[in-house]
Amino acid sequence: MRIAIDAMGGDLGPRATVRGAAGAALQDSRLTLQLFGPRACLEREIASLPRRLAAAGSRMEVVDAPGEIAPGVRPSDALRHGGDSSMALMLDCLASGRACAGVSGGNTGALMALGRRAMGTVGGIPRPAISTAIPTREQGRCYLLDLGANIEASSDRLVDFARMGEVMARHVDGLSRPRIALLNVGAEGIKGTASVRQADARLRELPGLNYCGYVEGDGIFAGSVDVVVCDGFVGNAVLKASEGLARMLVARVQATFEAHWGSRLVGLLARPALRRLRGELDPVRYNGASLLGLAGIVVKSHGGSDADGFRYAVLRAVQEVEHDLPRQLARELGEARMDSISRVGATGGDDRQ
Amino acid sequence: MRIAIDAMGGDLGPRATVRGAAGAALQDSRLTLQLFGPRACLEREIASLPRRLAAAGSRMEVVDAPGEIAPGVRPSDALRHGGDSSMALMLDCLASGRACAGVSGGNTGALMALGRRAMGTVGGIPRPAISTAIPTREQGRCYLLDLGANIEASSDRLVDFARMGEVMARHVDGLSRPRIALLNVGAEGIKGTASVRQADARLRELPGLNYCGYVEGDGIFAGSVDVVVCDGFVGNAVLKASEGLARMLVARVQATFEAHWGSRLVGLLARPALRRLRGELDPVRYNGASLLGLAGIVVKSHGGSDADGFRYAVLRAVQEVEHDLPRQLARELGEARMDSISRVGATGGDDRQ
Repeated sequence: MRIAIDAMGGDLGPRATVRGAAGAALQDSRLTLQLFGPRACLEREIASLPRRLAAAGSRMEVVDAPGEIAPGVRPSDALRHGGDSSMALMLDCLASGRACAGVSGGNTGALMALGRRAMGTVGGIPRPAISTAIPTREQGRCYLLDLGANIEASSDRLVDFARMGEVMARHVDGLSRPRIALLNVGAEGIKGTASVRQADARLRELPGLNYCGYVEGDGIFAGSVDVVVCDGFVGNAVLKASEGLARMLVARVQATFEAHWGSRLVGLLARPALRRLRGELDPVRYNGASLLGLAGIVVKSHGGSDADGFRYAVLRAVQEVEHDLPRQLARELGEARMDSISRVGATGGDDRQ
Repeated sequence: MRIAIDAMGGDLGPRATVRGAAGAALQDSRLTLQLFGPRACLEREIASLPRRLAAAGSRMEVVDAPGEIAPGVRPSDALRHGGDSSMALMLDCLASGRACAGVSGGNTGALMALGRRAMGTVGGIPRPAISTAIPTREQGRCYLLDLGANIEASSDRLVDFARMGEVMARHVDGLSRPRIALLNVGAEGIKGTASVRQADARLRELPGLNYCGYVEGDGIFAGSVDVVVCDGFVGNAVLKASEGLARMLVARVQATFEAHWGSRLVGLLARPALRRLRGELDPVRYNGASLLGLAGIVVKSHGGSDADGFRYAVLRAVQEVEHDLPRQLARELGEARMDSISRVGATGGDDRQ
């Protein structure tokens, strides 16, 4: 199983991505990795892998990519000038079938734009959505989408997101009937924007979908649904606010124990529990957002991820490969869309913008 | 200082509101309270106040209000049929000048609608916004608005929110130059919806405003700004997601210590620190959302608040009374709007919807 890695994406540079990729390769012996970036730089990183990761070096191949997509570059500029970048060449490798998934920690907008150009979308999806799993109560997880690829979303797009999330949760996570919800400002039917209310009406009628209606923001973490759908502006704001709040709370937990557990004994006793706690709250364990709807598997690693986070993103890509996610999406969404088109033909209504 | 209390709002019933109000009265000896609700029920609650709160009973007066606004009632139905409700009569008392602020834990939409009808708005604000303070790093706080009164917001409305939040932070919190930010999906100028980008352009030109540009969701908790502005859908989703996440994390902290601190000694040692921690993370301490822009002071207590939470909401109302917030808003926003109108007259542009 060959995974293509944009080794230059991410704020921490190629050391984090190369080490993270190496960690994933050690964890899964099927993997071989193609690393895209300036050859000399990446070969140096591979040569200086720490001892515990060094064995993965033999399964890592460098593909020279002199260019780089800067974090602030507009998608249109990335399309125009980014052809020799590690991100674009990684995606080309994926599009040509030489790798079965790609991972990048770089500029999301550029990744989306270059990914669409290189591969296109499946199942009639006009534009991919970004989704990531979020930890919930009872050690569960919930997919939230969209996270920023579509800052405004018509009811049609919200329905697409629900369908894609459902397919992902069913195939990748093995849930037989994933519970799908729409994010809204109240649980009552009268609330929300027109597109949310229209999407609600359409989701209620979709055959085979385990649609649970509206949830409010706290419903994302309640563990009572498996997929929560919203437009990309809302999803992005909610995800980043959650990251910020979790960081603040973990810092406060730590400060509380440092302030009040003066005694050496108690401090020592508390340390392992606090370490475990930090681990459980760690967003790194949930790193790796899927570009759902693309005709290929691309996982976006959080820009600020360290090697450990990047490793999770690579392993997320592996999971999607194992379940052949784009093919499932193409098959199921293609069918759904045919149904929908015939229904629209019969009723004459479609709110696509 | 007389505060009008809708004693029937809130999920926990009049016991929580009466005790919360009594707690506030004990904390601030200037307060007298008018409690609205079924007389017999409220007199029973006052008579059965616990010993530590009983002294407040003499400063609590019951006004009989037989009706009640149910949580799920539409604002339009509340306007039509809610005239004898504890909420409507509380607002009438406020509108007639017999009380200087009102507090309710009831249906937010109904409170907004009845409040607008009873009092109207100030400074040319077409519709109030809801705002609450959120805890940030370094023991700070940040106002977030709107939280759901305006599920869609034109750039004009976002500018209104920024101005109102600025006036509130300056007068109520005593900040000399509150730092104002717009919530967006990226810090770069090219991102976001049209209304967010237009609001950004207009805020940059507003004289005297300490506008800091965009923040992403994590910026709300970073402690680097004092007011974060967004539409009500986004604000509501972010606030409720944050509440849900905080509850989940606190539960996990507790579970971690229960699971791993088996020994009686360590468990006992940990308990006070955990209690302090829960207190610090407690959203109750930040309870009390302001209906900003109304021509009167109305504070919405969280529906699920207990007595302690309701006490904070009453004390929030007292703070706003002390700083005469509606008058400051009327004065400063009225002026700003005049400036804006003359500027629009000169340039011929206005995107009000």
